[in-house]
Amino acid sequence: MKIAVDAMGGDYAPQEIVKGAIETAREDGIELTLVGSEDAIQRELKKYDISALPIRVVDAGEVIQEGESPVAVLHHKQDASLLVAMRLVKEEKADAVVSMGSTGAVLVAAIEILGKLEGIRRPSAGGFICGFAPNTLLFDMGPNADCKPRDLLNFAAIGSAVARKLLHINNPTVALLSNGGEEGKGNLLVKKAYPLFKESHLNFIGNIEGYDIPFGRANVVVCDGFTGNILLKFCEGLGEAVVERLRAALDKQVPEERLETIADNLFALTHTAEQGGPIFGVDGVAVIGHGHSKAPQVTNAIGMAKMAAELNLLEEIKLELAKIKNEG
Amino acid sequence: MKIAVDAMGGDYAPQEIVKGAIETAREDGIELTLVGSEDAIQRELKKYDISALPIRVVDAGEVIQEGESPVAVLHHKQDASLLVAMRLVKEEKADAVVSMGSTGAVLVAAIEILGKLEGIRRPSAGGFICGFAPNTLLFDMGPNADCKPRDLLNFAAIGSAVARKLLHINNPTVALLSNGGEEGKGNLLVKKAYPLFKESHLNFIGNIEGYDIPFGRANVVVCDGFTGNILLKFCEGLGEAVVERLRAALDKQVPEERLETIADNLFALTHTAEQGGPIFGVDGVAVIGHGHSKAPQVTNAIGMAKMAAELNLLEEIKLELAKIKNEG
Repeated sequence: MKIAVDAMGGDYAPQEIVKGAIETAREDGIELTLVGSEDAIQRELKKYDISALPIRVVDAGEVIQEGESPVAVLHHKQDASLLVAMRLVKEEKADAVVSMGSTGAVLVAAIEILGKLEGIRRPSAGGFICGFAPNTLLFDMGPNADCKPRDLLNFAAIGSAVARKLLHINNPTVALLSNGGEEGKGNLLVKKAYPLFKESHLNFIGNIEGYDIPFGRANVVVCDGFTGNILLKFCEGLGEAVVERLRAALDKQVPEERLETIADNLFALTHTAEQGGPIFGVDGVAVIGHGHSKAPQVTNAIGMAKMAAELNLLEEIKLELAKIKNEG
Repeated sequence: MKIAVDAMGGDYAPQEIVKGAIETAREDGIELTLVGSEDAIQRELKKYDISALPIRVVDAGEVIQEGESPVAVLHHKQDASLLVAMRLVKEEKADAVVSMGSTGAVLVAAIEILGKLEGIRRPSAGGFICGFAPNTLLFDMGPNADCKPRDLLNFAAIGSAVARKLLHINNPTVALLSNGGEEGKGNLLVKKAYPLFKESHLNFIGNIEGYDIPFGRANVVVCDGFTGNILLKFCEGLGEAVVERLRAALDKQVPEERLETIADNLFALTHTAEQGGPIFGVDGVAVIGHGHSKAPQVTNAIGMAKMAAELNLLEEIKLELAKIKNEG
């Protein structure tokens, strides 16, 4: 499994990126290509004993700056590490690419270099919304703030493909997230999407409410990226507020170690989406990690890329998108 | 303080409505008017010693059925308890009206009988989103699934008025709920609303993310009712999932009584919006309670109506709406 890593993207690049990447090469037998300033990367690599590890470096002279317009980067920084890494996938020199850089830049680069799958207007992000519902994936989590009904149907198809491969659920249930469970509830977008879902081959179970999410009432929960993003960040904030309150309530009531376990557990259950994930709807495997990722999160993101490639998610998504192409 | 109660609205009407109402008359010195089938109400009243209480009954012959179209009710059931109760406010025979009936019916009745305030397209609902942020109100929580930028500005004005009166915050901070903190983030609605907010006299602090809500980063958080409704129901669901998990984790680790207190506390902190609240943007005080309210929730809803009337929320809202009328 060959994975290209944008070594210059992220708040702690290249140090933490290189550190996290080495970990995966050590443990998972991944062939890594670190892309970025060769000098800077070699300086980091020297800190570790990597003699036996399958790591190579591809030099890329330019770095994308914080706040830089993704489109400008694409036009004026052809040698940016992100673009060079992305091209390795396009040229089949890598099975997947991972970047902790700006989400906007990764999206634009993926669209331009890998290309969008048929029928997709813009790539989407999706994944676990909270650990209380380990068999529930939420799409879209951010890139698509404004959606058309057809976009939601695409998310549902992609989500079904991911649920099948990742969660091993043969016929995953799909629901529209709405402000009421009954048919006819929703904003205009949901109301228009509902009949498309109903007429599709998807295992559509109707609308669900926010309340239903933590109870896993559907395997694939579909909403626009604005709602999805607010929801997953609210989940993180609420999780932290609960943990804080519990620490105060349980202080000296239970052994400290036990309290830490409970706190860590609740934190993890409410921060499932924090580590980023693949973007879907482009013709290749690309994983975006959080900008403030440190080595463990980088390791995690590379692991995700490996899994996505191994599971052949992309092929399953293409099949699913082909099926809904003439539906709805 | 005279309050009209729709005794026939809600899943447990009239039993629980009458029971809850009596409680308020006993404790708060409210003059109550119970509106509905006189026979049914008297049958309930006979169960209690109400000889010294200021309770009167106004007969209303018709009852709104579950699922009935609100508009049809308005045209064909002029003698429905909800409409008769609402008219008592319009005719200044009551200071406020409370109903546990269908939200849609109460909204339509309030619009038709009390009338909308100037500039308001549709009444809104708002209140505490979670107990972790006791100085944060969220608008809109449901009635306005699809909004225009101007609607959001109205919610902000109403929210500011409510925060001032209810939370005693002189110059409440106002934020737009968005998928990113920076200006320029958001869906089309938020992007268009942003400059209106910026140019208004409101104490606008910009966009906040879902993460910020439990930490009370703004006094008035503004979003469309679709997002707001999903968010508050998600908060309830997540709260219950957390409580369930904690019960398992702490079973036999802390005294049962202590565990119950913690569980009850977390439940309450994540269910602040459950008991309903006033609807805003109509020319009168109307409180909608949850359909499955039992007596304690009815007591609570009547208490809310009393408070809204006593605080003169309506006058403050009118002032605030007048101020933003020519802004934005």
